[in-house]
Amino acid sequence: MQKKGCSEEELFSFLSSARLKDRKYEKVLSSMCTIPHPVAVKAHNMFIETNLGDPGLFMGTASIEALLVERLGVLLHHKSAGGYATTGGTESNIQALRIAREIKNLKNPNVVVPESAHFSFEKACEILSLELRSVPSDKNYQMDEEKIEECIDKNTVCLVGVAGTTEYGVLDPISYLSEIALERDIFLHVDAAFGGLVLPFIDEKPDFDFKLPGVSSISVDPHKMGMSTIPAGCLLVRDSSVFKSTEVDTPYLTVKKECTLCGTRPGGSVAAAFAVLEYLGEEGMEEIVSRCMKNNNKLIFGMKKLGYPVAAEPCVNVASFLCEDTPKGWQVSRTRYGHLRTVCMPHITEDIIDEFLKDAESMQN
Amino acid sequence: MQKKGCSEEELFSFLSSARLKDRKYEKVLSSMCTIPHPVAVKAHNMFIETNLGDPGLFMGTASIEALLVERLGVLLHHKSAGGYATTGGTESNIQALRIAREIKNLKNPNVVVPESAHFSFEKACEILSLELRSVPSDKNYQMDEEKIEECIDKNTVCLVGVAGTTEYGVLDPISYLSEIALERDIFLHVDAAFGGLVLPFIDEKPDFDFKLPGVSSISVDPHKMGMSTIPAGCLLVRDSSVFKSTEVDTPYLTVKKECTLCGTRPGGSVAAAFAVLEYLGEEGMEEIVSRCMKNNNKLIFGMKKLGYPVAAEPCVNVASFLCEDTPKGWQVSRTRYGHLRTVCMPHITEDIIDEFLKDAESMQN
Repeated sequence: MQKKGCSEEELFSFLSSARLKDRKYEKVLSSMCTIPHPVAVKAHNMFIETNLGDPGLFMGTASIEALLVERLGVLLHHKSAGGYATTGGTESNIQALRIAREIKNLKNPNVVVPESAHFSFEKACEILSLELRSVPSDKNYQMDEEKIEECIDKNTVCLVGVAGTTEYGVLDPISYLSEIALERDIFLHVDAAFGGLVLPFIDEKPDFDFKLPGVSSISVDPHKMGMSTIPAGCLLVRDSSVFKSTEVDTPYLTVKKECTLCGTRPGGSVAAAFAVLEYLGEEGMEEIVSRCMKNNNKLIFGMKKLGYPVAAEPCVNVASFLCEDTPKGWQVSRTRYGHLRTVCMPHITEDIIDEFLKDAESMQN
Repeated sequence: MQKKGCSEEELFSFLSSARLKDRKYEKVLSSMCTIPHPVAVKAHNMFIETNLGDPGLFMGTASIEALLVERLGVLLHHKSAGGYATTGGTESNIQALRIAREIKNLKNPNVVVPESAHFSFEKACEILSLELRSVPSDKNYQMDEEKIEECIDKNTVCLVGVAGTTEYGVLDPISYLSEIALERDIFLHVDAAFGGLVLPFIDEKPDFDFKLPGVSSISVDPHKMGMSTIPAGCLLVRDSSVFKSTEVDTPYLTVKKECTLCGTRPGGSVAAAFAVLEYLGEEGMEEIVSRCMKNNNKLIFGMKKLGYPVAAEPCVNVASFLCEDTPKGWQVSRTRYGHLRTVCMPHITEDIIDEFLKDAESMQN
């Protein structure tokens, strides 16, 4: 630290120059985050000093968090879902596995996840000392239905399905998982961190949420397709009594128990998440999702014409291509199997797709 | 969710009315959070769309995070400390214990913490399947030096000391812990989530940071006395190679490994944390800390005159009183032993202390 402080002018000129070194979102086709909606930023600022870690001090903010959970619950077919705002999918997934572990309390617990699951499950299992069992993928990079049963045994505390995978944008056979979960009384967590705010706004899709009776919990991230500020994730559970399993006593706070992973939690991004959903309503979200899906299809169609077919048929606005080169100047990513991967977030317009396709064509020359 | 969205006016009038139900900070003497500094809010907004979970996209923001770690490292006597921004003390403490567990990799690991430690250690041990061993407190609610050794055995993977306890504002015998840690080769984590941005700005204090050669890691929270926005915590380590123990592979991101607990991480609050330190410099922080300490002393002196002596002699701006009643209209808290507890954060002025003392006097009538 410097002995003397600096002027506001110096400080912000330095910060601006650092900010300029960040990538502009217009060239970013690899991220599941996007530019926050203007009402998100405005709401965030209104609640910027609030702390949900001490909800007795911030009862108004806590009521907004409860409303956010209710709205997402309704959207995912369970009005009385329990839940709370997390920092995002990773934390939600860790907490879901933690709950599942505590409920069963077995000696050598294991968790059955799709091979294609987000890397946060590896992290969660390592932290929670859970054995991770991967179910191989089928040709479309979804969990192979026929190989699920053989991974499960009496020590399985949790099944995981993904609704809109990070790398291929596909959906695991969640209704099948739901049947197994009910039959064998196993906690079923659905990672819909991305898909949870896409699929409800699409006409034709398989069931993936609380509509399926075996689904115990769902991760859904408003800071992805919900255009909130960061951090805004959400862990929803069918039955809020499961949170008892992760409670610790909290001397000195305005509440007596805490079941979350983090202590201090920002109210700003939670108000932001709520604000976007409330402002847009279902119709507004449908419009945005439909634009993203249209752009995703345009990209898939254009790439196919250039000789780059998709590696998997996605059900959300993610695409993967059999394409070894990368168009210059664009931020795309590579899946673990080496496919070119893109995400058409709300900041990606039709014009941007045209430009991208032009650059993909010129890399062939 | 509503079918149709609402107008911006409706939305913000609803959000304002919720916000009004939150406590105003002027009457809050129980929180370790405070109103963020204006430069924090401004910097937060400049970086509001950035995501440190994908640092290759946000190289400018990532450079600010690195600078924040460096500044805090210098302040805590280790310029080349490794570290990263967390959501706060709880996450930092979990990650420190996780690192300690991975490094030793023992069968029945235990962690030795002061009885007075923050409840996040109980949470961390439960998550990480670590046995929690509490060292009883002495009369001043600090770790009893004489009772430390008997808690340690060959399965001890981590020692914890607190610099500025949440409930009593005291300091554990960290230099003694440092000696034991070196002697027995045990990871020593210092929880300075609160004290880490108080103690460096106070003239007379015992050593508590990387100056002590046995200290392996430190939690320090800019969103507490650093007047940043939430979430802004920091985990610092003496040797960044320890982060290897918590790395997982990250297919599809701009970086190949991730050692953090969360995935998506806000850049806004990190830029905010850096901005405050840079703007105020050491001298500015000294001024603020000295004002908080003066108010804390004024409160202690005033309460003593009213017949409410302190329960412990604090070394930071936290106080605990032998006082069973609570002045009306004030938000104070109770420690686990039932003492009235206050924190003189930067939002607490001399006038507020006068008012509080007046109300404390009138509750005697």
